[in-house]
Formats: sequence, C-alpha cells, structure tokens
Amino acid sequence: MEKIDGIVRDLEAIRLHSPLIHNITNYVVMNNTANALLAIGASPVMAHAREEAAEMAGLASAVVLNIGTLEPAWVEAMLVAGETALEKETPVIFDPVGAGATAYRNEVCKEIIERCAPTIIRGNASEIMALYNVQTRTKGVDSTAASGEALESARQLAVQTNAAVVISGETDYITNGQEVHTVANGSALMPRVTGMGCTASAITGAFAAVNPDPFLAATHAMYVMGIAGERAAGRSAGTGSLQMNFLDELYNLNEEAIRATIR
Amino acid sequence: MEKIDGIVRDLEAIRLHSPLIHNITNYVVMNNTANALLAIGASPVMAHAREEAAEMAGLASAVVLNIGTLEPAWVEAMLVAGETALEKETPVIFDPVGAGATAYRNEVCKEIIERCAPTIIRGNASEIMALYNVQTRTKGVDSTAASGEALESARQLAVQTNAAVVISGETDYITNGQEVHTVANGSALMPRVTGMGCTASAITGAFAAVNPDPFLAATHAMYVMGIAGERAAGRSAGTGSLQMNFLDELYNLNEEAIRATIR
Amino acid sequence: MEKIDGIVRDLEAIRLHSPLIHNITNYVVMNNTANALLAIGASPVMAHAREEAAEMAGLASAVVLNIGTLEPAWVEAMLVAGETALEKETPVIFDPVGAGATAYRNEVCKEIIERCAPTIIRGNASEIMALYNVQTRTKGVDSTAASGEALESARQLAVQTNAAVVISGETDYITNGQEVHTVANGSALMPRVTGMGCTASAITGAFAAVNPDPFLAATHAMYVMGIAGERAAGRSAGTGSLQMNFLDELYNLNEEAIRATIR
Repeated sequence: MEKIDGIVRDLEAIRLHSPLIHNITNYVVMNNTANALLAIGASPVMAHAREEAAEMAGLASAVVLNIGTLEPAWVEAMLVAGETALEKETPVIFDPVGAGATAYRNEVCKEIIERCAPTIIRGNASEIMALYNVQTRTKGVDSTAASGEALESARQLAVQTNAAVVISGETDYITNGQEVHTVANGSALMPRVTGMGCTASAITGAFAAVNPDPFLAATHAMYVMGIAGERAAGRSAGTGSLQMNFLDELYNLNEEAIRATIR
Repeated sequence: MEKIDGIVRDLEAIRLHSPLIHNITNYVVMNNTANALLAIGASPVMAHAREEAAEMAGLASAVVLNIGTLEPAWVEAMLVAGETALEKETPVIFDPVGAGATAYRNEVCKEIIERCAPTIIRGNASEIMALYNVQTRTKGVDSTAASGEALESARQLAVQTNAAVVISGETDYITNGQEVHTVANGSALMPRVTGMGCTASAITGAFAAVNPDPFLAATHAMYVMGIAGERAAGRSAGTGSLQMNFLDELYNLNEEAIRATIR
Repeated sequence: MEKIDGIVRDLEAIRLHSPLIHNITNYVVMNNTANALLAIGASPVMAHAREEAAEMAGLASAVVLNIGTLEPAWVEAMLVAGETALEKETPVIFDPVGAGATAYRNEVCKEIIERCAPTIIRGNASEIMALYNVQTRTKGVDSTAASGEALESARQLAVQTNAAVVISGETDYITNGQEVHTVANGSALMPRVTGMGCTASAITGAFAAVNPDPFLAATHAMYVMGIAGERAAGRSAGTGSLQMNFLDELYNLNEEAIRATIR
C-alpha cells in the first residue's frame, strides 16, 4: 500500500538523519518524549531558557511547543523558539494541552497560534474544540463532545490557521482543512498512560522534520503512535508495562510490524 | 471485613467519577504520580502557574501540595490553590517533603499549614516530627526517631491542625488526633524507588475526593499503596521493575487482590 | 584484580553510609538519576531554590551540577551550591550537557568551572571538546570528532581545571591530566535512553562521596555504569526495557556480577 510505503520512508529518513527536535514541553512528560524521540531515531533537545531559545530553535529540524505545565517565562521562550522556526521555515508542532480549562491557557494558545503559525496542531477533541472556540472568540467547551463535532472544529481551525490539525482519540482524525485522514490503530489503555498525547506531538515533530508535507507527516506520525501503542498494549499487563513496551515497540518498529498491525 | 468494603467502595467511586486531582508537586515524581492517578482511575492535572492556580484548583475535587522541589513562585501558586480549595471545601493534601532539612522548607511548611489548613498531611517519620516541631516553635529533628515518637508528634499535629496525619513507614500510622489506624502492608523495596511517598500523597488526594471522611480516605489510600506495592515487589527483580509493576498493580487492583493481600 | 576490589569497596561504602547526594540537574532525567542513586544505595536530594541551595549543599557528601535544562535562576543556585561545596571540600561533579550548542551554555560552563572548581567533569566527546575550547577562548566544536582528539582536550582540561575529566562513549576515558583509564563496558543501546550520561554523573557523585581520590572515584563509577548497562542491555528488548533493567542491575550489582562482566 502507498500508505505503508510513505510511513516506512519517513521512518527510515528519521533513522538516517536523526533530526534534532527542539522541545519546549511540560515537566510531566519530558522523559517520555525524549525517550520516544530517541527510540524512533530522532535526536531530542529540551531547552527553555529565554537566553538560548532562538539559538537552539535555529539548530533544530522541528520545534515542538507544548503548554502542559506552562508559566509566563516558558511561554516567552516558546514564542521566541516558534518565531525563530517560522522565520527559518522550520516546522512548528503545537500541543495545546488543557486548552479550554483556564483563561490563561486560552490566551496563550491564541498568542502562540498568532505569532508562531504552527505547521501542525495536535490535541484531543476537547482541546481542538476549545482552540477553535478561542480563535472564533466564542465561548463554551464540551469535553464530552462527539468526535464528529470536534472534526468540524478541526477542519475550520485548519482553514483559519493554515495548519494540519490532528484530533487524537479512539480514532485519530487528521485534516488539512479539505481532506481528512483517519487512523484506527491504538488501544484503550493508551490514554491511561500520562503523556501519550504529548509523545504523539513530539513524534509528529520527527516526521515533520523529514517530510515536507505536514498533512502526511502528521498522518504517518499518528499511524506510528497507534501501531506501536497497539502492539505494546497487546503484551502489557497494565499501564506501567505499556509505558515501557511502547518504547521498545517504537525502537523495533519496521515495515513488517507496520504491515502486520495497520488497519 | 468492613475495612475491605470501605476500600473497595472508594476505589469504585474513583473509577466511576474519575475525580480531577490538581497537583502542584515536585519535578522528580510528576510522571509517576500522574501515572499512579491514571492507573487508579482518577484524572490528574499538574499546573503551577500563578496565573491559573486558582481557576485550576476551583475545577478540582482535591488539591495535592508537595514541596519536594519548592521555590518561591511555586509556593505562591500552592498557597493560591490551597486557599481556593479551602474556600470551596475541597480537600487539600499536604506532603511536606524534606521538612526539617532547611530553614526555608520549615517556613514554607508553616505558611502552607496556616493558610491552606490541609485536610490531610502525609510524610515520613522525620518530616512529621519536623513539622510538629516547627508548629510548636521548638527545634531539633531526629531522622532516626522511633515510629512511636513520631506517632505522638502526628497525634499532636492532628489536634493542632485539625488534619488527618499520616506517617509512612514500614508500618503506616494514620491519626485524626484521637484514633490511630495502622497499615502493615508494603515492602522494604518501596522506599528505594523515588517518589513512592509522593505517590501516596497523590493517591490520598483521589480517595479524599470521593470519601468525605479524611481519616478514612487517608487510611484507604495507604492500604491501596501498601497492597499494590507489596504485590508488585513480590514479582520484581529490583527497583526498576517495582516502579513499573506498581502501576500495573494499581491498574488491576480489585476486591479479590485486596482481600488476598491485606493484613 | 585490584581494580575489582576498588569498585567493590566503594560500592559497599555507598551502601553502608548511604551518602546524601545533592543534585541540581535537569528536568528530563531527575526521576532516573534519583532512582539510580537509590538503586546503588545512595540518598539523593534534588533542590534548586536559591533560598536553600547553600544549606542543602552543606548537608551533602557530594554536589552534582548538570546544566541540561539550565536557566538563570537555576544557574545561580548551582553556583551557590558549588561554592558551598568548594568551601567545605565536598566533591563537586559537573555535567556540561550541551556545551558548545549555544553561547549561553558556554558562558555558564565557564562560570561554573571558575567559581566552583569541580572535582570531576563528565561529558561526551563533543561536550568535553567544547568545554576545552571555551576555557582556552578559541572557537569551534566538532561533534563528530574522534575520541582521540577529545582525549587530548580532556587531558588539557584536567590540567587546567585540576579536575578528573571523563569522556563517556563507546569506550570511556577518564584522565587526571597525566594518567588515562579506559572502560570498555557498556552497550550501544545506552545512548538511545535519555539521561544515561546524566545518570553517570550522579553515580559519579556517589563514588566521589566515599572515595577521596576523584580519578579513582570517576573510574569506578564508569565501570559500574558500563557493567550495569551491559548486563541490562543483554536482557532488554529495546530502550524502554533497558531503562528499567538498568535500575534492577544497579540494585543487584555485586562482586560476582562485576567479576563476570568487567573487561
């Protein structure tokens, strides 16, 4: 299948070039996302000081901004890194963790989108809906919203921001505003491990670093997340072992495993 | 046994309602405590920005304050979150990590207790004794103190602060100032994994979110920690596998496992 | 062999005295390094507040400074802790993560070396070469440099700074400026797990706390890292399981395992 070829091609490019992915992300998941990037063959760097954010972003092949444990000084560094990337046409992946939960998060999301023009935005259904609502200056977030409703928000958000937008969930949706890709791989155990969404955003950075089409890069990344997660869940006794097995699956992922697992 | 029924009832309530637990905690353990809360069925959020601390605490069913890697800006957020919780009668769990080690920690402990009036305080013997000494403005902390001596400090601290006080150790003691519960489950391997105490505090937050009696909530939480830890240690080759197996045990914990392991 | 006796003697001293190791380190690895220190028998503390850095460093048997996710407030605390240690003749281990990547990192490295006079400096080949270049005020860092070239930088750096200098890599080199020790143990899987280098620095802190000779302490630490890592890799399906098995191996490490694995 063409799809599998594309995923394998990107995966091989990541392992060959080991692109540097600059992450300004949250405390909870830094270890996991660094390990996921290493497992897949990329080269992670975490650096948030205002003093070096531009220089580090300038070295990177993709910049991942994640507001999970945001605070003003970190947001400032995110903006600097994101603007540097924008200038250099380096892809920016934005993960709006907890968008809609507080006014502060909503403001920060708005500012990051306006100033950094993310290439890819990835969140869960609630976050994507919240983000769309913030963008359109309306109110109200329904965290129990159906995926279909979130998909419409994602589509509109993609049109407005010119980003590829990903909704992670039981089925993942990826849209560029016109087309929609869906990824059905994954496991119900995955959302019970913290930072799986953040890891998806980091992995998306690795794919965006080697694939110039953000819509395809995001789709391939979600396949790899779903396939590795599904394979790991199949041999895990619980959420602790899933976290470990997921890294092993990423590390060992190859065409054969992809072909055997993809839906 | 009535005891087992109470634990199971709380556990089912956590899994049914998935209460939001707002943690302002230390960098070392954030991943573990988030995963432990997810494994048991609760919904963790880590957020420390002064800009959103009140709003986030206002959404939560329990607030967990942990000073492991404290600094002034984080302490300020803890006070805001704790005071918000106090106003809304949301339970506040306080983990005085390293109390007694430095003057700064002692001051912060005093301020958190005074302004946030924690519902439950959980620490090891040294920390509870240091906390009691700080409260009574005397000096001297003996980290090699016998549990019995710490228990008297805990009892006095409970009376003074109106909190349920937990001493974690080979035997855990939980007191409301009058009565004392003891939990003998656990494993000597547990203190060799970082953040097991912090995880106990986070899990206590989940129980406090569903059980209106802090003394019982804390007792049930300590049983669950001890039972899951003991079961995990029984099939672990070392501290690395214990950390993983512990999450699996929490995830799979049910009445049968509790009944088979409780002492 | 004399070498094995020395490693075992230090290991036993760590387990007997459980020295307090004060770490001001990066967010990505805090959990791993704390767990590695606990697994080997030491007692880790992570504390970065300016308000308590001197007091905490004053309690410690070794201070580990790691600039992986540096920012000005943390650097200030590192300087305070390092200067306190210097005054008290407590060993200071310095890990110049990412030296050479940004101007800010280079400045901070220079300041830490000047003001804290580290007892042991540990980095990879690029970092050690960058550090040497910063010290000599010349420019240019070649991250693909051969080990031999890095070794000459390490030797000069050791002479200039009076520190034992460690280059981690496929073969580890440890030098006091005159002599060179080499450690061939390890696994190619180890650099694919985040923070293995940072863990090496933390473990070096534990050995420096019990062995008054920094050159020997650093050598013994690198043997223990390489031996535990090699044994763990031998039974790991990927990088996720390596991270776990490594802690189990550290926890279980004894003379027999060392004797069976050392090269």
